[in-house]
Amino acid sequence: MNYGVIIYILGLLMKAEAAFLMCPFVVGLIYRENTAWSYLITAAICLALGIVMSWRKPKKGGLYLKEGYFVVALGWLIMSMLGALPFIMTGEIPKYIDALFETVSGYTTTGATILADVEVLTHATLFWRSFLHLLGGMGVFVFLSGLLPMLGGNSVNLMKAESTGPSVDKLVPRIKDTVRILYSVYLMMGLTEVLLLLIFGMDLFSSLTLTFGTIGTGGFGVLNSSIGSYSPAVQWTIGIFMLLSGMNYSLYFLLLRRKFKQAFGMEEIRLYLSITFVACALIVLNLGRFYSTFGETVRQTFFQVSSLLTSTGYATTDFDLWPEFSKTILIVVMIIGACAGSTGGGIKMSRLLILFKAARKQNQIFIHPRAVKKIKMDNNVVDHDAVRATNAYISLFFAVLFISVLLISLDEHDFMTNFTAVVATLNNMGPGFNLVGPTCNYSFFSVGSKIVLIFDMLAGRLELFPMLLLIMPRSWRRYL
Amino acid sequence: MNYGVIIYILGLLMKAEAAFLMCPFVVGLIYRENTAWSYLITAAICLALGIVMSWRKPKKGGLYLKEGYFVVALGWLIMSMLGALPFIMTGEIPKYIDALFETVSGYTTTGATILADVEVLTHATLFWRSFLHLLGGMGVFVFLSGLLPMLGGNSVNLMKAESTGPSVDKLVPRIKDTVRILYSVYLMMGLTEVLLLLIFGMDLFSSLTLTFGTIGTGGFGVLNSSIGSYSPAVQWTIGIFMLLSGMNYSLYFLLLRRKFKQAFGMEEIRLYLSITFVACALIVLNLGRFYSTFGETVRQTFFQVSSLLTSTGYATTDFDLWPEFSKTILIVVMIIGACAGSTGGGIKMSRLLILFKAARKQNQIFIHPRAVKKIKMDNNVVDHDAVRATNAYISLFFAVLFISVLLISLDEHDFMTNFTAVVATLNNMGPGFNLVGPTCNYSFFSVGSKIVLIFDMLAGRLELFPMLLLIMPRSWRRYL
Repeated sequence: MNYGVIIYILGLLMKAEAAFLMCPFVVGLIYRENTAWSYLITAAICLALGIVMSWRKPKKGGLYLKEGYFVVALGWLIMSMLGALPFIMTGEIPKYIDALFETVSGYTTTGATILADVEVLTHATLFWRSFLHLLGGMGVFVFLSGLLPMLGGNSVNLMKAESTGPSVDKLVPRIKDTVRILYSVYLMMGLTEVLLLLIFGMDLFSSLTLTFGTIGTGGFGVLNSSIGSYSPAVQWTIGIFMLLSGMNYSLYFLLLRRKFKQAFGMEEIRLYLSITFVACALIVLNLGRFYSTFGETVRQTFFQVSSLLTSTGYATTDFDLWPEFSKTILIVVMIIGACAGSTGGGIKMSRLLILFKAARKQNQIFIHPRAVKKIKMDNNVVDHDAVRATNAYISLFFAVLFISVLLISLDEHDFMTNFTAVVATLNNMGPGFNLVGPTCNYSFFSVGSKIVLIFDMLAGRLELFPMLLLIMPRSWRRYL
Repeated sequence: MNYGVIIYILGLLMKAEAAFLMCPFVVGLIYRENTAWSYLITAAICLALGIVMSWRKPKKGGLYLKEGYFVVALGWLIMSMLGALPFIMTGEIPKYIDALFETVSGYTTTGATILADVEVLTHATLFWRSFLHLLGGMGVFVFLSGLLPMLGGNSVNLMKAESTGPSVDKLVPRIKDTVRILYSVYLMMGLTEVLLLLIFGMDLFSSLTLTFGTIGTGGFGVLNSSIGSYSPAVQWTIGIFMLLSGMNYSLYFLLLRRKFKQAFGMEEIRLYLSITFVACALIVLNLGRFYSTFGETVRQTFFQVSSLLTSTGYATTDFDLWPEFSKTILIVVMIIGACAGSTGGGIKMSRLLILFKAARKQNQIFIHPRAVKKIKMDNNVVDHDAVRATNAYISLFFAVLFISVLLISLDEHDFMTNFTAVVATLNNMGPGFNLVGPTCNYSFFSVGSKIVLIFDMLAGRLELFPMLLLIMPRSWRRYL
């Protein structure tokens, strides 16, 4: 391992986190809150660490893929451990494991909380929780790659580890330009949402924090009722922006380039919209007269489907009270997840497409044993490596899922709670059902279970391999 | 499609079923039960159909793999539909959908029942239920292949469709000899168990029926308490024979040939025994003082693990009352299933090994992108086709699982019931948890849900592809 570069990059990351922490500090100053100083102190700690670690610029700049995975996994862990400090210092979250859970939940855009009451939090802390979604959504290393020319050659391997979906495309030849395009789309989308929310009468603070939660597909809110107490116009706005945030960002790139035919032909987007439509239609039919008006039924259904499909986790209603068929649709939708190349979690649309096409191919091979078939997506051949990686991902996904359910079942809660808690953290969703339903929180789990769920959140956000690489003793022994 | 051969083979199958039906008829005569005649009438119907269908020997004898799959899927369906008739005629199961459910459950060695009280059934009917397990366990087409030289060339494709596991090995060059070896081992194992049960004081009728249920890994019993009210010696015997029935039959072949080193080196068997041991150890620890003595704890644990791992489904205790951690282990064990090449269901040990090795290979590729790695099992290279088929199997398995859960959730029962009912039928297990727990039955499901579960049982027994081929409209259109 190239320790020089790894420590240097982690140092840059600490400096970046120091800068991030200044935002809640400023918010705290504006609202004249004492908690603001906790953010300044943590920023100072991060800055000090960052300066020490990135003091010496390494001579050899190369970074292999495995080192990229390693540094990203370690970076996210350290970033979360430091980012949790203000919650302790302000006393708003007394236990460190809970503070860490909350921070990881923020960075990974999960949105699962251990807080029963978020309305007692100070503005600085509320801002920090939501701001983590904005940072984690697009990726912190992706952010660094766009800013720092030094990382140039290494950026691809960092981006591969941090981005979602089976394959990462560079939209344009230079990675720096790709990152700038991605972040521009991301921030433009956010700006549009903030403006719309302001127009619909929301205050600036709520507009900003809820927008961070939407476009990062996070899910932390500022009210205990999540999005339930806002006006229908606000709910529709957030619902639609969640759906937009779950789309593959290549779509927006193609739209900006006016390649409309290519954009609207994207198979992943078509599947995504089809699943959204079918899930909504089935739930609306199943709900029947659950809500007083048809308009409300459609709004509640669309919001919940959009929220769970994109792994955001905002709620406007207690969907745990919905009939079993609707709940099962939501669970399936939770597992499927959003598009690759979006800020959302889950197995991802494109993996589903590859799996479906591979299974169809297998069926065709049964019928015509000698046929040579290629798997295609958007008219490009999906190469053997991508198919193999997808298959390995699915196997590992279910392995991590069942092992996690097994571990947290030691707490002796019911199967629905355990199963959906793991799905909700592994897919960076937030709420599940029963004890972890939309009106509940994760505080009742034991420390051991919280560690498992923290691992699941990080593993889900970084798509399994980096975190598995980090914890596997064999890779430690052999490569360190 | 070669209709001539397909109809001819189905005719032979009907004739075979006529012969099978004579067994419960004879049992009924011995016990002087009127229900016996229902079996004779059904046998006559099957024989008449069989004679008509196999009247003309087809000239062209060839059968492609897809035709093999087609005929096996269709054959199992027709066989079950006819085999359900006696239940209706005797009036012991009034509704046809229930009778079909019970018959499919028997043939597929699932052991899920719609009967609340089996002790009121006549001996003929009890025998028929259990006898289905014996027939379905090793496979009816496999049975035919051993008897009828005519099928010679086609037997491999029939066996491939009916046998369990990712690949079917011919143990010896001639398929007929392979079948004879398999059936000899199967019946010898059965005979040994019957003798042991007789020695431990059980009557001949119970010994026979419970042995059918054990070696076929079925699970239909003759008492409402399943195996709970028998002596510890009987419970240990059945527990151990379930475990033996879940092993790959290649093991017994190797043992008979005195290739001990090769036999005990089989990776699949090692994994199977390791999982059994680990699951038992964890449950014993978790149960603590649930039972009065340590001996009873070990016996109850071993019996339940052995029963659920091999997908038999016998129970000696209401494991739905066990603590959540133990229940979750049982669910995981249920999904994993027995060895390939056994009579048990589930995903199968060898698939698990292939998946695990493929995921490890994927991880190594991340670390060393240029490395060329082969997946090996028992020192043989697992070829690319087998890996691809395994991956497609897993994707389809979870797709069928979640679609089935979604469909039966329309009945509005709880998630644990729906999820474990589908796992229990798709893995040919029998009991699940909650409403389908070991003390309950499947009668409360709607007709629609029963059809879904019947499909799942057949799909699970025939390992997905044949049944999917049968119901897919596209394959009908194109190839019929």
